[in-house]
Amino acid sequence: MTVFPEEPVLEAAVRRRLSPGRFAHTVGVVETAEELARRFGIDVRKARVAAWLHDVAKDEPRESLLKRAEEFGIVFDEITARQAELWHSVIGAEIARREFGIDDEEVLAAIRYHTTGRAGMSGLEQVIFLADIIEPGREFPGVEELRRRSREDLEGAVLAALESTICYVIRQGGLLHPDAVAARNHILLRRS
Amino acid sequence: MTVFPEEPVLEAAVRRRLSPGRFAHTVGVVETAEELARRFGIDVRKARVAAWLHDVAKDEPRESLLKRAEEFGIVFDEITARQAELWHSVIGAEIARREFGIDDEEVLAAIRYHTTGRAGMSGLEQVIFLADIIEPGREFPGVEELRRRSREDLEGAVLAALESTICYVIRQGGLLHPDAVAARNHILLRRS
Repeated sequence: MTVFPEEPVLEAAVRRRLSPGRFAHTVGVVETAEELARRFGIDVRKARVAAWLHDVAKDEPRESLLKRAEEFGIVFDEITARQAELWHSVIGAEIARREFGIDDEEVLAAIRYHTTGRAGMSGLEQVIFLADIIEPGREFPGVEELRRRSREDLEGAVLAALESTICYVIRQGGLLHPDAVAARNHILLRRS
Repeated sequence: MTVFPEEPVLEAAVRRRLSPGRFAHTVGVVETAEELARRFGIDVRKARVAAWLHDVAKDEPRESLLKRAEEFGIVFDEITARQAELWHSVIGAEIARREFGIDDEEVLAAIRYHTTGRAGMSGLEQVIFLADIIEPGREFPGVEELRRRSREDLEGAVLAALESTICYVIRQGGLLHPDAVAARNHILLRRS
Protein backbone atom coordinates (compact mmCIF):
# COMPACT_ATOMS: atom_id res chain seq x y z
CA MET A 1 0.00 0.00 0.00
CA THR A 2 1.37 3.33 -1.08
CA VAL A 3 2.23 5.67 1.79
CA PHE A 4 1.07 9.26 1.33
CA PRO A 5 1.78 12.27 3.53
CA GLU A 6 -0.87 12.81 6.22
CA GLU A 7 -3.62 15.14 5.06
CA PRO A 8 -3.04 17.83 7.72
CA VAL A 9 0.57 17.99 6.51
CA LEU A 10 -0.57 18.40 2.89
CA GLU A 11 -3.17 20.95 3.84
CA ALA A 12 -0.74 23.08 5.84
CA ALA A 13 1.92 22.94 3.13
CA VAL A 14 -0.53 23.85 0.39
CA ARG A 15 -2.01 26.66 2.48
CA ARG A 16 1.47 28.10 2.90
CA ARG A 17 2.16 28.04 -0.85
CA LEU A 18 -1.14 29.36 -2.16
CA SER A 19 -3.06 32.61 -2.04
CA PRO A 20 -6.24 32.42 0.11
CA GLY A 21 -8.41 32.31 -3.02
CA ARG A 22 -6.39 29.50 -4.59
CA PHE A 23 -6.40 27.62 -1.27
CA ALA A 24 -10.20 27.87 -1.11
CA HIS A 25 -10.36 26.54 -4.69
CA THR A 26 -8.11 23.63 -3.70
CA VAL A 27 -10.37 22.76 -0.76
CA GLY A 28 -13.28 22.75 -3.21
CA VAL A 29 -11.39 20.43 -5.55
CA VAL A 30 -10.53 18.06 -2.67
CA GLU A 31 -14.19 17.82 -1.66
CA THR A 32 -15.47 17.46 -5.21
CA ALA A 33 -12.79 14.91 -6.09
CA GLU A 34 -13.78 12.83 -3.06
CA GLU A 35 -17.44 12.97 -4.06
CA LEU A 36 -16.67 11.95 -7.66
CA ALA A 37 -14.27 9.22 -6.55
CA ARG A 38 -16.86 7.68 -4.22
CA ARG A 39 -19.54 7.86 -6.89
CA PHE A 40 -17.46 6.21 -9.60
CA GLY A 41 -15.45 3.72 -7.57
CA ILE A 42 -12.08 5.49 -7.75
CA ASP A 43 -9.55 5.32 -4.88
CA VAL A 44 -10.71 8.15 -2.59
CA ARG A 45 -7.38 8.53 -0.81
CA LYS A 46 -5.50 9.01 -4.07
CA ALA A 47 -8.14 11.43 -5.30
CA ARG A 48 -7.78 13.59 -2.18
CA VAL A 49 -3.97 13.58 -2.29
CA ALA A 50 -3.91 14.51 -5.99
CA ALA A 51 -6.52 17.21 -5.40
CA TRP A 52 -4.53 18.75 -2.53
CA LEU A 53 -1.46 18.97 -4.70
CA HIS A 54 -2.90 19.72 -8.15
CA ASP A 55 -2.26 23.48 -7.97
CA VAL A 56 0.71 23.36 -5.58
CA ALA A 57 2.88 25.29 -8.07
CA LYS A 58 0.21 27.62 -9.41
CA ASP A 59 1.04 30.70 -7.36
CA GLU A 60 4.75 30.60 -8.08
CA PRO A 61 5.95 33.42 -10.31
CA ARG A 62 6.88 32.62 -13.91
CA GLU A 63 10.59 33.01 -13.26
CA SER A 64 10.50 30.61 -10.35
CA LEU A 65 8.59 28.04 -12.45
CA LEU A 66 11.15 28.37 -15.23
CA LYS A 67 13.98 27.94 -12.75
CA ARG A 68 12.35 24.81 -11.36
CA ALA A 69 11.79 23.43 -14.86
CA GLU A 70 15.49 23.78 -15.50
CA GLU A 71 16.42 22.32 -12.13
CA PHE A 72 14.05 19.34 -12.70
CA GLY A 73 15.32 18.81 -16.25
CA ILE A 74 11.86 19.44 -17.69
CA VAL A 75 11.75 20.49 -21.34
CA PHE A 76 8.32 21.87 -22.23
CA ASP A 77 6.80 20.95 -25.58
CA GLU A 78 6.35 23.87 -27.99
CA ILE A 79 2.78 24.69 -26.98
CA THR A 80 3.35 24.35 -23.22
CA ALA A 81 6.45 26.55 -23.49
CA ARG A 82 4.28 29.38 -24.87
CA GLN A 83 1.39 28.94 -22.43
CA ALA A 84 2.59 29.88 -18.95
CA GLU A 85 -0.75 28.72 -17.48
CA LEU A 86 0.19 25.11 -18.34
CA TRP A 87 3.53 25.11 -16.51
CA HIS A 88 2.14 24.61 -13.00
CA SER A 89 0.72 21.16 -13.82
CA VAL A 90 4.01 19.76 -15.08
CA ILE A 91 6.07 21.41 -12.33
CA GLY A 92 3.43 20.56 -9.72
CA ALA A 93 3.71 16.83 -10.44
CA GLU A 94 7.47 17.04 -10.04
CA ILE A 95 7.14 18.97 -6.76
CA ALA A 96 4.72 16.30 -5.54
CA ARG A 97 7.32 13.66 -6.33
CA ARG A 98 10.40 15.43 -5.01
CA GLU A 99 9.11 17.50 -2.11
CA PHE A 100 6.14 15.45 -0.94
CA GLY A 101 7.60 12.02 -1.67
CA ILE A 102 4.66 10.94 -3.84
CA ASP A 103 5.73 7.95 -5.91
CA ASP A 104 2.32 6.78 -7.04
CA GLU A 105 2.37 7.25 -10.80
CA GLU A 106 -1.44 7.51 -10.99
CA VAL A 107 -1.49 10.41 -8.56
CA LEU A 108 1.42 12.11 -10.33
CA ALA A 109 -0.30 11.75 -13.73
CA ALA A 110 -3.52 13.19 -12.31
CA ILE A 111 -1.59 16.30 -11.27
CA ARG A 112 0.48 16.40 -14.47
CA TYR A 113 -2.51 16.29 -16.82
CA HIS A 114 -5.13 18.13 -14.80
CA THR A 115 -5.17 21.19 -17.08
CA THR A 116 -5.07 19.65 -20.56
CA GLY A 117 -6.22 16.07 -20.04
CA ARG A 118 -4.66 13.49 -22.39
CA ALA A 119 -5.64 10.48 -24.47
CA GLY A 120 -6.54 7.50 -22.30
CA MET A 121 -7.01 9.32 -18.98
CA SER A 122 -7.43 7.02 -15.98
CA GLY A 123 -10.50 7.35 -13.76
CA LEU A 124 -8.37 9.22 -11.23
CA GLU A 125 -7.12 11.65 -13.91
CA GLN A 126 -10.72 12.25 -14.99
CA VAL A 127 -11.80 12.90 -11.40
CA ILE A 128 -9.12 15.56 -10.83
CA PHE A 129 -9.58 17.15 -14.26
CA LEU A 130 -13.31 17.47 -13.69
CA ALA A 131 -13.22 18.43 -9.99
CA ASP A 132 -10.91 21.32 -10.92
CA ILE A 133 -13.55 22.65 -13.30
CA ILE A 134 -16.78 22.06 -11.36
CA GLU A 135 -15.77 22.61 -7.70
CA PRO A 136 -18.32 24.80 -5.90
CA GLY A 137 -16.27 27.99 -6.29
CA ARG A 138 -16.35 27.84 -10.10
CA GLU A 139 -18.86 30.02 -11.90
CA PHE A 140 -19.12 30.13 -15.69
CA PRO A 141 -21.83 29.58 -18.27
CA GLY A 142 -22.47 25.84 -18.50
CA VAL A 143 -20.97 24.82 -15.15
CA GLU A 144 -24.34 23.66 -13.79
CA GLU A 145 -24.82 21.39 -16.81
CA LEU A 146 -21.34 19.93 -16.20
CA ARG A 147 -22.20 19.35 -12.53
CA ARG A 148 -25.41 17.62 -13.57
CA ARG A 149 -23.61 15.36 -16.06
CA SER A 150 -20.91 14.59 -13.50
CA ARG A 151 -23.57 13.01 -11.29
CA GLU A 152 -24.30 10.33 -13.90
CA ASP A 153 -21.41 9.91 -16.28
CA LEU A 154 -17.82 10.76 -15.34
CA GLU A 155 -16.39 10.31 -18.82
CA GLY A 156 -19.30 12.13 -20.47
CA ALA A 157 -18.79 15.08 -18.15
CA VAL A 158 -15.04 15.11 -18.90
CA LEU A 159 -15.89 15.10 -22.63
CA ALA A 160 -18.25 18.06 -22.22
CA ALA A 161 -15.68 19.91 -20.09
CA LEU A 162 -12.96 19.33 -22.72
CA GLU A 163 -15.24 20.66 -25.44
CA SER A 164 -16.15 23.72 -23.44
CA THR A 165 -12.45 24.34 -22.70
CA ILE A 166 -11.37 23.87 -26.34
CA CYS A 167 -13.98 26.33 -27.62
CA TYR A 168 -13.10 28.79 -24.84
CA VAL A 169 -9.41 28.66 -25.79
CA ILE A 170 -10.32 29.25 -29.45
CA ARG A 171 -12.53 32.23 -28.59
CA GLN A 172 -9.69 33.65 -26.49
CA GLY A 173 -7.22 33.22 -29.35
CA GLY A 174 -5.05 30.91 -27.23
CA LEU A 175 -2.94 27.97 -28.38
CA LEU A 176 -4.72 24.62 -28.16
CA HIS A 177 -2.66 21.92 -26.49
CA PRO A 178 -2.79 18.73 -28.59
CA ASP A 179 -3.29 16.65 -25.43
CA ALA A 180 -6.72 18.24 -24.90
CA VAL A 181 -7.78 17.39 -28.45
CA ALA A 182 -6.38 13.86 -28.14
CA ALA A 183 -8.25 13.43 -24.82
CA ARG A 184 -11.53 14.35 -26.52
CA ASN A 185 -10.91 12.16 -29.58
CA HIS A 186 -10.00 9.22 -27.35
CA ILE A 187 -13.24 9.45 -25.37
CA LEU A 188 -15.30 9.79 -28.56
CA LEU A 189 -13.59 6.72 -30.02
CA ARG A 190 -14.18 4.72 -26.84
CA ARG A 191 -17.86 5.62 -26.80
CA SER A 192 -18.57 5.07 -30.51
CA MET B 1 9.26 24.15 -65.41
CA THR B 2 6.81 21.55 -64.24
CA VAL B 3 4.52 20.19 -66.93
CA PHE B 4 0.88 19.89 -65.95
CA PRO B 5 -1.99 18.37 -67.92
CA GLU B 6 -3.83 20.90 -70.11
CA GLU B 7 -6.77 22.48 -68.30
CA PRO B 8 -9.45 21.21 -70.73
CA VAL B 9 -8.17 17.69 -70.07
CA LEU B 10 -8.37 18.22 -66.31
CA GLU B 11 -11.80 19.79 -66.57
CA ALA B 12 -13.22 16.95 -68.68
CA ALA B 13 -11.74 14.28 -66.44
CA VAL B 14 -13.04 15.92 -63.29
CA ARG B 15 -16.48 16.49 -64.82
CA ARG B 16 -16.65 12.77 -65.62
CA ARG B 17 -15.78 11.78 -62.04
CA LEU B 18 -17.96 14.20 -60.11
CA SER B 19 -21.67 14.83 -59.61
CA PRO B 20 -22.91 18.04 -61.26
CA GLY B 21 -23.10 19.77 -57.87
CA ARG B 22 -19.57 18.78 -56.93
CA PHE B 23 -18.32 19.81 -60.36
CA ALA B 24 -19.91 23.24 -59.92
CA HIS B 25 -18.20 23.52 -56.52
CA THR B 26 -14.88 22.61 -58.14
CA VAL B 27 -15.31 25.32 -60.79
CA GLY B 28 -15.93 27.78 -57.94
CA VAL B 29 -12.78 26.62 -56.16
CA VAL B 30 -10.71 27.00 -59.36
CA GLU B 31 -11.92 30.59 -59.83
CA THR B 32 -11.51 31.52 -56.18
CA ALA B 33 -8.08 29.89 -56.00
CA GLU B 34 -6.94 31.88 -59.03
CA GLU B 35 -8.22 35.10 -57.47
CA LEU B 36 -6.46 34.40 -54.15
CA ALA B 37 -3.26 33.29 -55.89
CA ARG B 38 -3.11 36.50 -57.95
CA ARG B 39 -3.81 38.63 -54.91
CA PHE B 40 -1.14 37.03 -52.72
CA GLY B 41 1.56 36.29 -55.28
CA ILE B 42 1.13 32.52 -55.42
CA ASP B 43 1.74 30.51 -58.65
CA VAL B 44 -1.62 30.79 -60.44
CA ARG B 45 -1.09 27.77 -62.65
CA LYS B 46 -0.37 25.52 -59.67
CA ALA B 47 -3.36 26.95 -57.82
CA ARG B 48 -5.70 26.14 -60.73
CA VAL B 49 -4.35 22.61 -61.17
CA ALA B 50 -4.61 21.83 -57.45
CA ALA B 51 -8.11 23.33 -57.37
CA TRP B 52 -9.29 21.22 -60.34
CA LEU B 53 -8.09 18.06 -58.64
CA HIS B 54 -8.75 18.78 -54.95
CA ASP B 55 -12.04 16.81 -54.83
CA VAL B 56 -11.24 14.36 -57.63
CA ALA B 57 -11.89 11.39 -55.32
CA LYS B 58 -14.78 12.86 -53.36
CA ASP B 59 -17.64 11.17 -55.17
CA GLU B 60 -16.15 7.70 -55.06
CA PRO B 61 -17.99 5.33 -52.77
CA ARG B 62 -16.37 4.38 -49.45
CA GLU B 63 -15.53 0.86 -50.61
CA SER B 64 -13.78 2.15 -53.69
CA LEU B 65 -11.77 4.64 -51.60
CA LEU B 66 -10.76 1.87 -49.21
CA LYS B 67 -9.73 -0.34 -52.13
CA ARG B 68 -7.62 2.46 -53.56
CA ALA B 69 -6.02 3.14 -50.18
CA GLU B 70 -4.96 -0.50 -50.07
CA GLU B 71 -3.77 -0.47 -53.68
CA PHE B 72 -1.78 2.74 -53.06
CA GLY B 73 -0.30 1.40 -49.82
CA ILE B 74 -1.88 4.24 -47.82
CA VAL B 75 -2.35 3.59 -44.10
CA PHE B 76 -4.68 6.16 -42.55
CA ASP B 77 -3.87 7.56 -39.13
CA GLU B 78 -6.37 6.65 -36.40
CA ILE B 79 -8.52 9.76 -36.77
CA THR B 80 -8.57 9.74 -40.59
CA ALA B 81 -9.48 6.04 -40.56
CA ARG B 82 -12.65 6.87 -38.59
CA GLN B 83 -13.62 9.96 -40.60
CA ALA B 84 -14.59 8.85 -44.11
CA GLU B 85 -14.91 12.50 -45.18
CA LEU B 86 -11.12 12.88 -44.84
CA TRP B 87 -10.22 9.98 -47.14
CA HIS B 88 -10.78 11.80 -50.43
CA SER B 89 -7.96 14.31 -49.78
CA VAL B 90 -5.32 11.65 -49.17
CA ILE B 91 -6.53 9.41 -52.01
CA GLY B 92 -7.06 12.42 -54.28
CA ALA B 93 -3.42 13.48 -54.00
CA GLU B 94 -2.35 9.96 -54.93
CA ILE B 95 -4.75 9.90 -57.91
CA ALA B 96 -3.32 13.24 -59.03
CA ARG B 97 0.15 11.72 -58.91
CA ARG B 98 -0.59 8.35 -60.49
CA GLU B 99 -3.40 9.09 -62.93
CA PHE B 100 -2.73 12.71 -63.85
CA GLY B 101 1.04 12.54 -63.71
CA ILE B 102 1.37 15.44 -61.24
CA ASP B 103 4.81 15.33 -59.67
CA ASP B 104 4.87 18.80 -58.17
CA GLU B 105 5.01 18.20 -54.43
CA GLU B 106 3.48 21.59 -53.63
CA VAL B 107 0.41 20.83 -55.72
CA LEU B 108 0.13 17.33 -54.25
CA ALA B 109 0.38 18.71 -50.68
CA ALA B 110 -2.31 21.30 -51.44
CA ILE B 111 -4.66 18.47 -52.43
CA ARG B 112 -3.54 16.20 -49.61
CA TYR B 113 -4.14 18.77 -46.85
CA HIS B 114 -7.06 20.73 -48.23
CA THR B 115 -9.56 19.40 -45.68
CA THR B 116 -7.58 19.53 -42.43
CA GLY B 117 -4.75 21.96 -43.11
CA ARG B 118 -1.48 21.21 -41.32
CA ALA B 119 1.29 23.01 -39.44
CA GLY B 120 3.40 25.16 -41.75
CA MET B 121 1.06 25.26 -44.75
CA SER B 122 2.59 26.80 -47.89
CA GLY B 123 0.87 29.74 -49.57
CA LEU B 124 -0.50 27.34 -52.18
CA GLU B 125 -1.90 25.04 -49.49
CA GLN B 126 -3.54 28.04 -47.82
CA VAL B 127 -5.08 29.16 -51.12
CA ILE B 128 -6.67 25.76 -51.82
CA PHE B 129 -7.78 25.26 -48.20
CA LEU B 130 -9.48 28.65 -48.19
CA ALA B 131 -10.90 28.60 -51.73
CA ASP B 132 -12.61 25.31 -50.86
CA ILE B 133 -14.42 27.02 -47.97
CA ILE B 134 -15.28 30.42 -49.46
CA GLU B 135 -16.00 29.67 -53.16
CA PRO B 136 -19.18 31.40 -54.31
CA GLY B 137 -21.36 28.28 -53.91
CA ARG B 138 -20.70 28.03 -50.16
CA GLU B 139 -23.31 29.37 -47.79
CA PHE B 140 -22.92 29.18 -44.03
CA PRO B 141 -22.97 31.63 -41.14
CA GLY B 142 -19.72 33.54 -41.20
CA VAL B 143 -18.74 32.89 -44.82
CA GLU B 144 -19.05 36.57 -45.78
CA GLU B 145 -16.67 37.53 -42.98
CA LEU B 146 -14.20 34.91 -44.24
CA ARG B 147 -14.50 36.29 -47.80
CA ARG B 148 -13.88 39.79 -46.46
CA ARG B 149 -10.78 38.71 -44.52
CA SER B 150 -9.51 36.76 -47.53
CA ARG B 151 -9.30 40.02 -49.45
CA GLU B 152 -6.70 41.41 -47.05
CA ASP B 153 -4.94 38.66 -45.19
CA LEU B 154 -4.60 35.11 -46.56
CA GLU B 155 -3.16 33.59 -43.41
CA GLY B 156 -5.62 35.46 -41.16
CA ALA B 157 -8.52 34.14 -43.22
CA VAL B 158 -7.11 30.59 -43.03
CA LEU B 159 -6.84 30.99 -39.24
CA ALA B 160 -10.46 32.13 -38.98
CA ALA B 161 -11.59 29.29 -41.28
CA LEU B 162 -9.71 26.73 -39.17
CA GLU B 163 -11.34 28.06 -36.01
CA SER B 164 -14.78 27.99 -37.52
CA THR B 165 -14.17 24.42 -38.75
CA ILE B 166 -12.83 23.23 -35.38
CA CYS B 167 -15.82 24.61 -33.48
CA TYR B 168 -18.20 23.17 -36.09
CA VAL B 169 -16.65 19.71 -35.73
CA ILE B 170 -16.97 19.95 -31.94
CA ARG B 171 -20.62 20.99 -32.13
CA GLN B 172 -21.28 18.05 -34.48
CA GLY B 173 -19.57 15.64 -32.07
CA GLY B 174 -16.99 14.71 -34.72
CA LEU B 175 -13.36 13.71 -34.19
CA LEU B 176 -10.91 16.61 -34.50
CA HIS B 177 -7.95 15.86 -36.72
CA PRO B 178 -4.73 16.94 -34.95
CA ASP B 179 -3.45 18.49 -38.22
CA ALA B 180 -6.20 21.13 -38.07
CA VAL B 181 -5.25 22.05 -34.51
CA ALA B 182 -1.54 22.08 -35.37
CA ALA B 183 -2.29 24.30 -38.40
CA ARG B 184 -4.05 26.83 -36.16
CA ASN B 185 -1.34 26.74 -33.45
CA HIS B 186 1.35 27.20 -36.09
CA ILE B 187 -0.29 30.31 -37.52
CA LEU B 188 -0.84 31.78 -34.04
CA LEU B 189 2.82 31.18 -33.17
CA ARG B 190 3.98 32.76 -36.42
CA ARG B 191 1.85 35.84 -35.82
CA SER B 192 2.68 36.33 -32.14
